[in-house]
Order: sequence, then structure tokens, then C-alpha cells
Amino acid sequence: MTLLAEICRSIVPVDGEAARRTRQCLDSKTKPRGSLGVLEDLACQTASIYGTAAPPLPRKAVVVMAADHGVAEEGVSAYPSEVTAQMVRNFATGGAAINVLSRQAEAHVLVVDMGIASGQRQSAVSHVPLGPGTANFTHGAAMSKEAAVRGLEIGIGMTTELAAEGIGLIGVGDMGIANTTSASALTAVLCGEAVELVTGRGTGIDDAGRQRKIRAIERALAVNRPDPADALDTLAKVGGFEIAGLAGVVLGASARRIPVLLDGFITGAAALIAVRLCPAARGYLIASHRSVEPGHQVILRELRLRPLLDLEMRLGEGTGAVLAMYLVEASLRIVREMATFTTAGVTDTGA
Amino acid sequence: MTLLAEICRSIVPVDGEAARRTRQCLDSKTKPRGSLGVLEDLACQTASIYGTAAPPLPRKAVVVMAADHGVAEEGVSAYPSEVTAQMVRNFATGGAAINVLSRQAEAHVLVVDMGIASGQRQSAVSHVPLGPGTANFTHGAAMSKEAAVRGLEIGIGMTTELAAEGIGLIGVGDMGIANTTSASALTAVLCGEAVELVTGRGTGIDDAGRQRKIRAIERALAVNRPDPADALDTLAKVGGFEIAGLAGVVLGASARRIPVLLDGFITGAAALIAVRLCPAARGYLIASHRSVEPGHQVILRELRLRPLLDLEMRLGEGTGAVLAMYLVEASLRIVREMATFTTAGVTDTGA
Repeated sequence: MTLLAEICRSIVPVDGEAARRTRQCLDSKTKPRGSLGVLEDLACQTASIYGTAAPPLPRKAVVVMAADHGVAEEGVSAYPSEVTAQMVRNFATGGAAINVLSRQAEAHVLVVDMGIASGQRQSAVSHVPLGPGTANFTHGAAMSKEAAVRGLEIGIGMTTELAAEGIGLIGVGDMGIANTTSASALTAVLCGEAVELVTGRGTGIDDAGRQRKIRAIERALAVNRPDPADALDTLAKVGGFEIAGLAGVVLGASARRIPVLLDGFITGAAALIAVRLCPAARGYLIASHRSVEPGHQVILRELRLRPLLDLEMRLGEGTGAVLAMYLVEASLRIVREMATFTTAGVTDTGA
Repeated sequence: MTLLAEICRSIVPVDGEAARRTRQCLDSKTKPRGSLGVLEDLACQTASIYGTAAPPLPRKAVVVMAADHGVAEEGVSAYPSEVTAQMVRNFATGGAAINVLSRQAEAHVLVVDMGIASGQRQSAVSHVPLGPGTANFTHGAAMSKEAAVRGLEIGIGMTTELAAEGIGLIGVGDMGIANTTSASALTAVLCGEAVELVTGRGTGIDDAGRQRKIRAIERALAVNRPDPADALDTLAKVGGFEIAGLAGVVLGASARRIPVLLDGFITGAAALIAVRLCPAARGYLIASHRSVEPGHQVILRELRLRPLLDLEMRLGEGTGAVLAMYLVEASLRIVREMATFTTAGVTDTGA
């Protein structure tokens, strides 16, 4: 059995009994029942992932995967391809938004080169490229099925390392010029939506650019005919190297019962692929925020996820994921630290 | 001139030029322009409050004001009045949700007894009661106009102390059984809305209780006839001691150019009173979250505030305010720490 098949088989549904015990614990705390709203649901979900009613505060990491996209040559992005490598260098030297917000969150940043076209190797970056960027998928498959599987397995391997380092909460992020084009194509296929409806402005392309992007995706779907019932086929035909890797991180984390904080549209598309490969992985997902990208709404609906934040962000890199780590921690602290009606001597009317 | 009048006169509009310079700074950072959405707006607003383009990270405090409400005897709450004192003791010993979340936020908690009916004095609580709770406002005014002014001035005084201690970011929170009844009455009067539309379930009262609450407010408005154009009159007639104090905190913080993180419905009603007394105070307000209480929506609309979080919370105590401090800090860190296109050597297409 391949590593991918083995990991998918090893993912168990989350522990509903642990969630129930966390809810009971929350109901004994000095507050009207349910009055902390989504924070309480989050505590219950996290408990169901760890399989314990009052989990300790986890060590945190964000995995930021970067790759180039052949489809960038169709003029679908507001930035040229070389920006992928430039931004990865920025990640390595700590100057990007993800670095700033990860320092605040006290989260380790793991930057992974899944296939950047240009740029030198950096000691602060994990280089495991599947190639110098995907092929332009308007002419044929973005990558081979073998490359897609290799990408997934690289992501799975990363989670093994993170788990060994004691990481208990994983955020995911992306960098790759033109990768919203790939995410829109994946969303259109896997959710059965019109390309127009799931295609946005990415980093800020104008109307004409967005029309080019829509037409490029429509050509890609006509040329490749990805099978909507086959996530691996769809990933290989219109996906990206970083998206394959990120889907692998979702699967690997789920197999190790580590919650995954999704970022926005790209990581959402990766999670959708992971859930299609193994539906039980859905329970391990936490949606950090609602992106401005229209395709992200479609993915959130498809995955039945309620985003924690709605701050009109559209940067990627994992910025939303690391911001929301604070809320996950808050929910766990409430369970662990709040007094109960009994210990605090507060009248409990059951409200 | 009274302290209140003096403070209202000293509040200047926020500094639009500082906000403009912060926006310019953000536009030079390695990210598509505006791609951090609301975080960028928040950075600009905070800069406009401090009057400087790249403010340092502030020291934080949350002022939690507690008081009892005579109207509780009308059966408008799911909890009995003694819970106000019990919860204040819980605040003093660190077991409440606000304590847990403030430890996480590294915010100092200042608990203020503005008029609790029962309970002993506690060394960890600032006792400045205006009386043993307000009068039942279904029979007459909740308090005298003099008491309302004294409450406002106590709140102003608190901000003087906090500013002297170097606090640069103030959250506000409340505790007071039956205080959503008061907040609903204030909202109905000051926003000209039907009582039914601005009255919710508070800590979780049932349908019959909510009907009692609506009728109690309607009786209070008929008996007291508060003048919607006179915020002080309205506060005295259907307000609460903690609401008067919190409105004072808003005014005092604004006068000292300290941003105020509002919590939910009660602190929103207090902010509305403050803004009616001094419209320039509006620029100093940050709405931390959207409460489940229907009246809170009305207040947010009236104050033209967009809440940072929407987590279906309805606890009060300042819990939303301290949670959102993390986002304020994140926005300031982005301005201070991110690399620019130039320093990082990233191609800037102007997108």
C-alpha cells in the first residue's frame, strides 16, 4: 500500500464523546450556557480532535508552501512569476506579513519550496521541488498523477516531522503567483460551479485580467477534462505543486489528530482535495477566516465550515490561519482556567 | 465649568493625516495593496487616534464596571440580582471569563463597583458606588441627573489613572443583572426604535420573560418620558450606574487620545451616550465584536461601527473587547515590522 493510501486509511473520525464532555465542562463554568458562542464550539471541536476533554495549549506551526504556476504566462495575475521566489526570500528573512503575525502568535514558520521556477536555495527554506513550476494547464495537465501523489506525500512527511517536534496545532499557508487561477479551476470542477462564479481578482487584477483568467480556466477545463469524481485526477490536471503539498499536510495532520487551521482560498482548495480523498479529514479542519475571493465561499459551503474571522483579507501566506490561532487558544483556556458555579459560589439558574 | 463639560470640550477629532501616512506606509509593504483588509483600516484608525503614523504597541487594560438594577425585580433576567456581587467576587479572584481572556491578552483588569446591592468590599475591586443599585425605572427615574453626572465623572477619573499608569489601549466591560433591560431602553429612546426590536434574551431568558422585559421597558418609557435629544436625561431615567461610568470611560479615554475597545450591547449603549454628549468621541471607538443581542446591531449601525469579530458571543464582562486587542496589536505590528517592496527586493506592480 502506498503512503498516501495508508494515511487515508488511518484517519479516524473525530471523538464526539470528548466534545460532549467539553460541552458539559463549559456548562459548569460561571457564564450563561453557550454565551461564549463560537469559542465554545471551537473548544468542543478541538477536544474532539485531540480526543480529550480539556486539552493543553498546543505548540504551533504554520506550513507555508510555495510553487510556481505555468498558467501565469496567460497573464492571469497582477504580479510576475518571479515574485514567488522573491516572496519566499522575504519569508526566509522574516519580513513578510506571515513572519510578523507568526512572531505575534509564537508559531514556528516552516517555508517549503514545492517547485519555484527561479531563485536560489535558502537555508531557512525546505526545498523539495516537484519541478520548476507546473506546466501551463491551458495546454495539458499541470503535472503528472505521480507528481501529484509525490506532492501529497511530501506534505504528509512534513506533518510527521512537525508532530515529532511536538507541534499540536498546524496552520497552512500558500505562496504562488497565479495560484488563485488553479484554485478557481479546482473549485469549479470539484464543486460543479460555473468558472465565472468562483473566479476573483486574486492579488488585484483588473476587469480585463479577470476575463483572461476566466477564459484561461475554461480552456484548461476543455483541454484537460478533469474528472470531478476523482480528486487526484483534478489535482494533477489543474492543481499546483503547493496545493498538492498542502492537501498532504491536511491528511497527515488529520492522521496524527492535529487540528489544521486553514487560511483562505488556496488552502481551502487543498483541504477540499484532502476531504475528497478521505472524508473523515473534514473533522480536523478549522476555517480561520473568510477570504474576499468568491471561490472561497463556495469551498466553505462545500466543506460546511464556518470561518472564525471575516476581515476582508486576501493575502494568503497563512496570515488568516496564524491570526486565528489566538482564538483556538482562547477557547482552550476557557475550558482549562474558568471557575465553575460551584467553586466560585455563583448561583446557577441553569440559564 | 464641570469636569464633564471640560472633558467634552477637550476631545478633538482624530488625526486624519496620521491615518493617511499609515495607509501610505502600508502600501509600501510586501503585499498587494489593501490585502490585509480590515487589519489595515484598524491600523489607520489607531494611528489617527494616537496622532502618529507608526504607533508603538500599547499597554492594555480592561475596565469592568458592575452595578445592580432596580428593574431586576420585574423578573426581566434569567439570574437573580445577587449574581452581580457573586460575579464581582469571581472577577476579584480571577475565575471569570474576563480574567482568563485578560491573562491571555496581557491586559490589566480593573473591576469597579459602581453600585452593587449586596456583597462585601473586596481589595481587588475599586468601590465607588453611586448607591445600592438603581431605582426600579418602571416607577420613576433610575437615578438623579446628579448621580448620572457623578457616574460619568468617575469613569473619566478612572481613565486619568490608567493614562498615568501608561495604559494606551482601554477595553470596556460590564456586569449587572438586568442591565440588558436598561441598554434596550436606552437604545429604544436614543435610536428611536421600537422596544420589541431592540430587546433580546440577555443571559438567556425564555419567551415569557422576554415579553415581561418588553412590557417593563414600555412602562418605563411611559412613566419617565426620557428626552431622546438629551442623552443625560435618558441615562438618568432608564440607564444604570455602570453604564454611566462606562460612558465616562469612553469620554475620558477619547480626551486622552486612547482607543476604546467596546464590548457588546451594554458598552455599546454607554458609547452611544458618550457620542451624544460629544460627537467627536466616535473616532476613538473600536467595536470588538457583534453581540447576539438585537439591540447591539442597532447601536453599531447608529455609531457606524464595523465589529472586528462575530462569534455569537453574549457574555459581556469585556470578553469581546479583550479578545479583539490581539487584532489591534496585529495591525500595529504589520505597520512596524513588515518589510517594504524596496527593502525586500520584491517587484512592485502597484496592484
